[in-house]
Amino acid sequence: MALNTDTTHDASLQSWLESANDPATDFPIQNLPFGRFRREDDDGLCIGVAIGDQVLDLRRVGLVQNAQMNQLMRLPREARQILRQAISEGLRQGSAQEGKFRAALVPQSEVKMGLPCEIGDYTDFYTSIHHATTVGKQFRPDNPLLPNYKWVPIGYHGRASSIFASGHSFPRPLGQTKSPDAEIPTFGPCRRLDYELELGIFISRPNIAGDRIPMSSAEEHVFGISLFNDWSARDIQGWEYQPLGPFLSKNFASTLSPWIVTMDALEPFRKAFAHPPGDPQPLPYLDSPANREGGAIDIELEVWLQTPAMKADDSPGERLMTSNYADAYWTVAQMVAHHTANGCNLRAGDLFGSGTLSGPDVGQGGSLLELSDGGKKPVKLANGEARTFLEDGDTVILRGYCRREGFRRIGFGECRGTVAPARP
Amino acid sequence: MALNTDTTHDASLQSWLESANDPATDFPIQNLPFGRFRREDDDGLCIGVAIGDQVLDLRRVGLVQNAQMNQLMRLPREARQILRQAISEGLRQGSAQEGKFRAALVPQSEVKMGLPCEIGDYTDFYTSIHHATTVGKQFRPDNPLLPNYKWVPIGYHGRASSIFASGHSFPRPLGQTKSPDAEIPTFGPCRRLDYELELGIFISRPNIAGDRIPMSSAEEHVFGISLFNDWSARDIQGWEYQPLGPFLSKNFASTLSPWIVTMDALEPFRKAFAHPPGDPQPLPYLDSPANREGGAIDIELEVWLQTPAMKADDSPGERLMTSNYADAYWTVAQMVAHHTANGCNLRAGDLFGSGTLSGPDVGQGGSLLELSDGGKKPVKLANGEARTFLEDGDTVILRGYCRREGFRRIGFGECRGTVAPARP
Repeated sequence: MALNTDTTHDASLQSWLESANDPATDFPIQNLPFGRFRREDDDGLCIGVAIGDQVLDLRRVGLVQNAQMNQLMRLPREARQILRQAISEGLRQGSAQEGKFRAALVPQSEVKMGLPCEIGDYTDFYTSIHHATTVGKQFRPDNPLLPNYKWVPIGYHGRASSIFASGHSFPRPLGQTKSPDAEIPTFGPCRRLDYELELGIFISRPNIAGDRIPMSSAEEHVFGISLFNDWSARDIQGWEYQPLGPFLSKNFASTLSPWIVTMDALEPFRKAFAHPPGDPQPLPYLDSPANREGGAIDIELEVWLQTPAMKADDSPGERLMTSNYADAYWTVAQMVAHHTANGCNLRAGDLFGSGTLSGPDVGQGGSLLELSDGGKKPVKLANGEARTFLEDGDTVILRGYCRREGFRRIGFGECRGTVAPARP
Repeated sequence: MALNTDTTHDASLQSWLESANDPATDFPIQNLPFGRFRREDDDGLCIGVAIGDQVLDLRRVGLVQNAQMNQLMRLPREARQILRQAISEGLRQGSAQEGKFRAALVPQSEVKMGLPCEIGDYTDFYTSIHHATTVGKQFRPDNPLLPNYKWVPIGYHGRASSIFASGHSFPRPLGQTKSPDAEIPTFGPCRRLDYELELGIFISRPNIAGDRIPMSSAEEHVFGISLFNDWSARDIQGWEYQPLGPFLSKNFASTLSPWIVTMDALEPFRKAFAHPPGDPQPLPYLDSPANREGGAIDIELEVWLQTPAMKADDSPGERLMTSNYADAYWTVAQMVAHHTANGCNLRAGDLFGSGTLSGPDVGQGGSLLELSDGGKKPVKLANGEARTFLEDGDTVILRGYCRREGFRRIGFGECRGTVAPARP
């Protein structure tokens, strides 16, 4: 569906729900992200759409039959667009269905959000060249950016079982570490605990094993995007990661924001994509006219830190950095085409992490490892505190939003997780 | 349940089913492995136990209510042992339940075996020091065995969606490769396609996220063991694997044998475990008296190759090598304790690959990469053919069995997969 026949992005659209028209809301009628929620008095998960400060229960308006989000996700893109149109029309000012839709609202403050779907396989990519270069310097000072980086959308498999919904806390992980000057490793609580600012990309239509997904149809296999925190234990990572990659340094916990912003909602925020002049052009299986014209997405990202002292002061925390997804070196379509180039089968609900989305400038590192230069320069906070890595009780909050002249702001909500003390 | 109160291993036990008493069968009454099968005339999966040349339908004898293997797997070990005892007693010569059990048999030749369970997360370990050393020499001639190997049971996450049941075929994968002397990489069919001889270890009882599983109870969380082929595209692997590990070189296909041999069936074949003299002893979180006494398992393993020419000659193929699981550097219990040392939550049905199980001697490489010395020395076959890597139409068959004086031979069946030509 081309943008010109799709009215769901029209900035003049207003909802009969007042909070959806607030310019500051993440969830205007132009957004309509999907998630799974649980009412306070009920154990079951329901499929909902965020609108202003409310959740629309899709079953109560008759738009879904059950709570199987993965079934909804695997619908063809056309069917998902028809669903989006129906939700948009029901929520618009003057809709004849206002009564039915209003009866299906529940305040966001009265629900508990779960993971948005059942995640089958989770793959983490490494699409920020700024992150890869800065971190590469710390693990391999002589060889920061490996020769394959500008050719291969580097990715690796991660752990699905330990991906948690926003708002959780997890104990500081224990693990085996070895400092460079020590003779033997020791086992104990992680001392270099970090976050990673990422986006989570959800697969919709599966492909049959053995069948590649070409660039031309790659985005038909994508449902939408959330915020994703890939917590990382840097001291465990440094000792374990060769030769087969990160493992226990990552799989103790990851955090997803509750709302999946659909590719349709993001349509107005697409940007041209190209590798910098002088860099290799993508191989043909990673290239398409559509990707060059609009493969990138302009999503502004923020990391916030709320320390125990800030909580005691009722402070919402301090913003540590900002970056933009449009600075990534590989696009969503390239991730899909690369992942299936060998015939690997994707399934509805599979999750891709974008990799840490650091920006090109100093201060745009998407992790404390980058901001503190490997722990050497503490990050000074406005209240006088400082951090090289995370301390017990720290809460990390990721935020993201899209802005463009002539369009309503589209927000991602927040992705929030807290470090609890290590268990004895 | 200690061996002396458990009668299910008694070599004198005979079944009223004649084929189960054949000394050559993989599935005597002392084995009783679990799998999921589908009748020719039926679409649904059922839980079955292999006995001789038959499958016992557990629902038809009233021992399970449904086909949810993962529910059965997550039962406490005591409950699984009671189930094993009940199956054993029903199949014994003289059993009062012979009629009921006989009515629940279906010939193995008349069923199609599926994957034994729903696999949530799949982790591949790297527990053979012989494999790690030989392969390390090829990827890093100066640095074959990395300093962490003797301290850390190295593992990494793999892809669950592309694990297939024995008997399948898959197209040769395409991918990005770069030869050392080429200036830029190219995209095309893999030219160094390989197998890896592994065992698949299935998790039973889950742990709660944040809770570690100590060595003392690690095996209570293990259901049993199958054969596993971790097909590998060596040319793709060489170009993609740094810095985050293997990805598209592995996730196009893996193959599992249909029957899970339970830890209870393997009890008589346990062996003492120790690192070689002079090597570091395992850190305390990877050590226990029980692991030292019986952490290893004596499982003899074989790889067979059946080329298209052999198929044309009605040959069952040629055995390429043998090795033994008891030569692994890390045990099943150590894999479980390490994987959860950081609080990572395991779920029933999760799969661990052992890593390629090469033996200490020349000719005991568990992959063609090893047997052909990185493709430099073709492996000569008895019919005059030779292989450096796999060719289209090649079938690889893994076999495994346990033997010990005074006990019946316990077999694993076979794990079989075939390379189809690359798709255009």
